[in-house]
Amino acid sequence: MKDVKDYIRSIPNFPKEGVIFRDITTVIQNPEGFKLAVDKLQECLEGVDFDVIAAAEARGFIFASPIAYNMSKGISLVRKKGKLPCDTVEQSYDLEYGSATVEMHTDSIKPGDKVVLVDDLIATGGTLEAAAKLVEKLGGEVVMVLCIVELPALKGRERLKGYNIKTIVEYDGD
Amino acid sequence: MKDVKDYIRSIPNFPKEGVIFRDITTVIQNPEGFKLAVDKLQECLEGVDFDVIAAAEARGFIFASPIAYNMSKGISLVRKKGKLPCDTVEQSYDLEYGSATVEMHTDSIKPGDKVVLVDDLIATGGTLEAAAKLVEKLGGEVVMVLCIVELPALKGRERLKGYNIKTIVEYDGD
Repeated sequence: MKDVKDYIRSIPNFPKEGVIFRDITTVIQNPEGFKLAVDKLQECLEGVDFDVIAAAEARGFIFASPIAYNMSKGISLVRKKGKLPCDTVEQSYDLEYGSATVEMHTDSIKPGDKVVLVDDLIATGGTLEAAAKLVEKLGGEVVMVLCIVELPALKGRERLKGYNIKTIVEYDGD
Repeated sequence: MKDVKDYIRSIPNFPKEGVIFRDITTVIQNPEGFKLAVDKLQECLEGVDFDVIAAAEARGFIFASPIAYNMSKGISLVRKKGKLPCDTVEQSYDLEYGSATVEMHTDSIKPGDKVVLVDDLIATGGTLEAAAKLVEKLGGEVVMVLCIVELPALKGRERLKGYNIKTIVEYDGD
């Protein structure tokens, strides 16, 4: 029985020297790999009471979307600044390779919504922390942060302390 | 019975003066709207023989992904230049609001693959034409171009002549 990790491709020195990039395109290109990854994420949500899935651009969309469909939820997008056409809230943050600003539509979370945040990977946790702040600015509650890959060495869990974090693959070294 | 169009929000003067932006975030935020959109796209694929779904960044990912999951296919990504970590082919093109280059991983399509190209919208068809060329460079065959929204005034079908194009919502004017 293969594990999701077996479908992930590791690419040295991308996007910069010394970094090993964990490439999920080889997971999603494979029908079995993709199904396994989505099903494993969905298992983490069994019995969890939530209203909305917030998906981080762009790889988060890929995993959030089938879960939303399967579980009859809506998807709210967390996008890079300038991509969303209507009224937004924004949050800037430092990320592993520079800095960025993300936005959500103000109408994409209703006060009191229980929100599951989905992305492909937790590295330093910067993007997810910014996304969580956006959800909270809009009055939502982040009930879970759900990702495929975790890189514990980058201490994303410390940055996201207090959140309920679930991941299905960990890389401690090479 | 609501139609997918009923869930789309029209935003005047985005991203520039005089353009009406057709916003699908209001479709996907609504569980019924999202399910309806995905189901309508999937109906277009009934009886169609295909191997892979190629999804155009970033909104295409949202619709491609549940279809791939439901129909047990893999997803190949069509991304803006610089985002894909492994060996790629690239294609530049003019788009409605400037120009861009898209890429696919060279291993994301196998020679002979029958490919369904998915995006949220056909405007001038520039992105989709570039994506189709990438699929063909890799030896794949585009058996369908599948989108939620079509803007016939921008003549995307002319640019994509020869391809089997399916869309589920049209805007002829306001």
